[in-house]
Amino acid sequence: MSVSTLATAPSVCAPLPVLGRDVTVPLVTGGEVTYAALDYAASAPALQRVWDDVAAYAPYYGSVHRGAGYLSQLSTDLFENARRTVAEFLDCRGGDQVVFTRSTTDSLNLLAAALPAGCQVFVFETEHHAALLPWRDARVTVLDAPRGPRQAVETLERALAERDPHGPALVCVTGASNVTGELWPVRELAAAAHAQGARIVLDAAQLAPHHPVSVKDLDVDWVAFSGHKLYAPFGTGVLAGRADWLRAAEPYLAGGGASRKVTRRTDGGVDVQWHDSAARHEAGSPNVIGAYAVASACKALTEAGFDTLVAREQYLVAKVREGLADVPQVRFLSLFGDDAPRVGVLSFVVEGWNSSHFAAALSAEYGIGVRDGLFCAHPLVRTLLGSDPQTQGECGAPEAAPGEKSLNAIRVSFGAGTPDEHVERFVRAVKELVTDGARWNYRTQDGRCVPDTSASTAAAGTSV
Amino acid sequence: MSVSTLATAPSVCAPLPVLGRDVTVPLVTGGEVTYAALDYAASAPALQRVWDDVAAYAPYYGSVHRGAGYLSQLSTDLFENARRTVAEFLDCRGGDQVVFTRSTTDSLNLLAAALPAGCQVFVFETEHHAALLPWRDARVTVLDAPRGPRQAVETLERALAERDPHGPALVCVTGASNVTGELWPVRELAAAAHAQGARIVLDAAQLAPHHPVSVKDLDVDWVAFSGHKLYAPFGTGVLAGRADWLRAAEPYLAGGGASRKVTRRTDGGVDVQWHDSAARHEAGSPNVIGAYAVASACKALTEAGFDTLVAREQYLVAKVREGLADVPQVRFLSLFGDDAPRVGVLSFVVEGWNSSHFAAALSAEYGIGVRDGLFCAHPLVRTLLGSDPQTQGECGAPEAAPGEKSLNAIRVSFGAGTPDEHVERFVRAVKELVTDGARWNYRTQDGRCVPDTSASTAAAGTSV
Repeated sequence: MSVSTLATAPSVCAPLPVLGRDVTVPLVTGGEVTYAALDYAASAPALQRVWDDVAAYAPYYGSVHRGAGYLSQLSTDLFENARRTVAEFLDCRGGDQVVFTRSTTDSLNLLAAALPAGCQVFVFETEHHAALLPWRDARVTVLDAPRGPRQAVETLERALAERDPHGPALVCVTGASNVTGELWPVRELAAAAHAQGARIVLDAAQLAPHHPVSVKDLDVDWVAFSGHKLYAPFGTGVLAGRADWLRAAEPYLAGGGASRKVTRRTDGGVDVQWHDSAARHEAGSPNVIGAYAVASACKALTEAGFDTLVAREQYLVAKVREGLADVPQVRFLSLFGDDAPRVGVLSFVVEGWNSSHFAAALSAEYGIGVRDGLFCAHPLVRTLLGSDPQTQGECGAPEAAPGEKSLNAIRVSFGAGTPDEHVERFVRAVKELVTDGARWNYRTQDGRCVPDTSASTAAAGTSV
Repeated sequence: MSVSTLATAPSVCAPLPVLGRDVTVPLVTGGEVTYAALDYAASAPALQRVWDDVAAYAPYYGSVHRGAGYLSQLSTDLFENARRTVAEFLDCRGGDQVVFTRSTTDSLNLLAAALPAGCQVFVFETEHHAALLPWRDARVTVLDAPRGPRQAVETLERALAERDPHGPALVCVTGASNVTGELWPVRELAAAAHAQGARIVLDAAQLAPHHPVSVKDLDVDWVAFSGHKLYAPFGTGVLAGRADWLRAAEPYLAGGGASRKVTRRTDGGVDVQWHDSAARHEAGSPNVIGAYAVASACKALTEAGFDTLVAREQYLVAKVREGLADVPQVRFLSLFGDDAPRVGVLSFVVEGWNSSHFAAALSAEYGIGVRDGLFCAHPLVRTLLGSDPQTQGECGAPEAAPGEKSLNAIRVSFGAGTPDEHVERFVRAVKELVTDGARWNYRTQDGRCVPDTSASTAAAGTSV
């Protein structure tokens, strides 16, 4: 780090090295530029350290569980050690189980499949679909979007007070919104849940990559997160927490690894004894490389000093907010107010612009990768936009033609690997696009908004 | 390839380069040796080509689906192209869907969750637990182990003739046994199923890595396989086949990516429109690297010439069979007879030896990684061993002390990356152990059979 950099950011650490930091992409206006990955909330690049660990291990990869060979036993140890590393990273209680899944979505679907009979589920409409939708066999109470942390707690308390106090209940809540980045009052919500005899699962998909998570301190019963948002995009997620419901449930996947003993009955059927450990829900050969990658990321974040990473991210959040404070056309989406604490995830709309068009211009003209859409949190985004569900677009295709007012939003998100320059370029790009318009025409093709290369000339400078 | 190698194996291609081919492991008797990975049936090493492709792509990894950035669109294209590559590899019909799962176990659990109401399932007791156990809500008919391919077809025909002819039915059958390696008469079983209005899913976990699979030629309705057995151990598996049952089913995972539109109802609940494509069952951020790795392996096997790989594997099978033909203590397990066609998967027991002990000695004294146990196919292994379920061990721990007669078996398995030397070493090791006994004592520790390093001297040369 040079002296001049230190002078501008005296207390901020350098970004952690990530894969792809030197990748260049072509611009529609000519030339190339290093790619600015600003869609961390969807999926973050792999930490270089994670990649190096995976690359070092890959030649030693072997079948786990009953393999008798040296590499099988090494791989089995590495897999079980990964579980312990994750438990430490999350500051789990003794007796908590760490189940390796494929993602947060998978983790919450697993928990949904493990609910006791008659369980009531309480979930805010503001949740990601992964937290909103998996509770299929349960009685689900969807809570209206609160307009502040205190209102969130009060809303939950009121709903829980009306529930059947004798049956099991589960609250599912995000730690940080995948749309606004705002932090939710997890500890207070956990206290409210427990006061009414309910349990709580924390969707930490957006929290764990950006902020230390302590199961003990937050007093949540389970926590779920994804490797691919935690700089370890190798197909593994985590559900960690209390063992009792998991042990009592039918195995999430039926198959080898989860089964301890299988016998034919005299009537021709099959009897199964299932494992009680985390393996109960991990049938099939586990994704050892994925689990190892997650553990490597946990170690890397801890060893880098998570507090310094948080400080760096807050410095980048401030850069975005301050950099665009004097651009009235940009409206950030917020549930809890502009000054609410948040991680490095911000969504916004630009007056007079279709969001898909704007995002496409950021990519094609500036090499910046953001996201447009409803961010798999349709009810929340509609609430924030004040839009009508009947006219609102669907996931998977820009719904409005370029030039039309967007019913979607744009999300910029970053994290431990983001250099200052990416955020600075983003701020500059937004300002230029708002002031000067796009330099190219865009059109929708196969559900994507892309530069219209059939036009022989660039746009005339206006975008709407 | 040297002239002398050509002289011993005139028509056999070289093994495909795999990761770990130069890894050395310590021997309990001193020194090191290159590791002989002979547990391909559990998990195969990554092809070097697969690793190289993953390593080349990893810096370009980006969030898929709605990401507007260049790398997001590149990654989305790569993910969808992987689907097409797999469809070509399996010779799918037009209109078939390729769903990326985490493994064969996951694929079959997905299909089980997509069965129409009232579906009857027919499955042989000889199946891997992944194929035997997932049909939880269905009426399952478990068929007795047949003693030949013809008997298998006749057994199925008889069972199907007795079924309710008006309801839906599914047959699940392996292409190659994970215990004996024997090939099953898939085409004939498919014809039998279809003649009775039933459908059929092929468990190709052990077939696809060793033999070309054509959905069209075999006329199966679905096929499932795992990346980690197909030289692509990055957490991805496949379910490919007819779209109708998959489209009609509730999404396997509920969450983002699978949901097209989510709206609050006026009564406070939530309405969901799900996708009809493969995405319906792939909620959450997909494992792009895993899917890409599978596609890379499919390409590598095809481009290497699958027929030459089959010929090479058959040459290795013959080496094992012929090399141990004059060792009467070794009994290979077979359902269809010693001469039945098989892939490179062979299980056996050694007279007077505990299988866990034998497998541990192969590892500790020869650097050979095989597997001992019941191979997640308990009923089949018990049938083959003629053992009593009541005294039979469970999965996950050697059940008999070293020196006691084993109730388990030993499995050796290999494939496209196996050099001649590994198989030759295995044959030599088996002969030496049978003739001279183990050179070390072994004991059970934490469910594993390991060299007893507390003994100051090696074993006296006897093993029982």
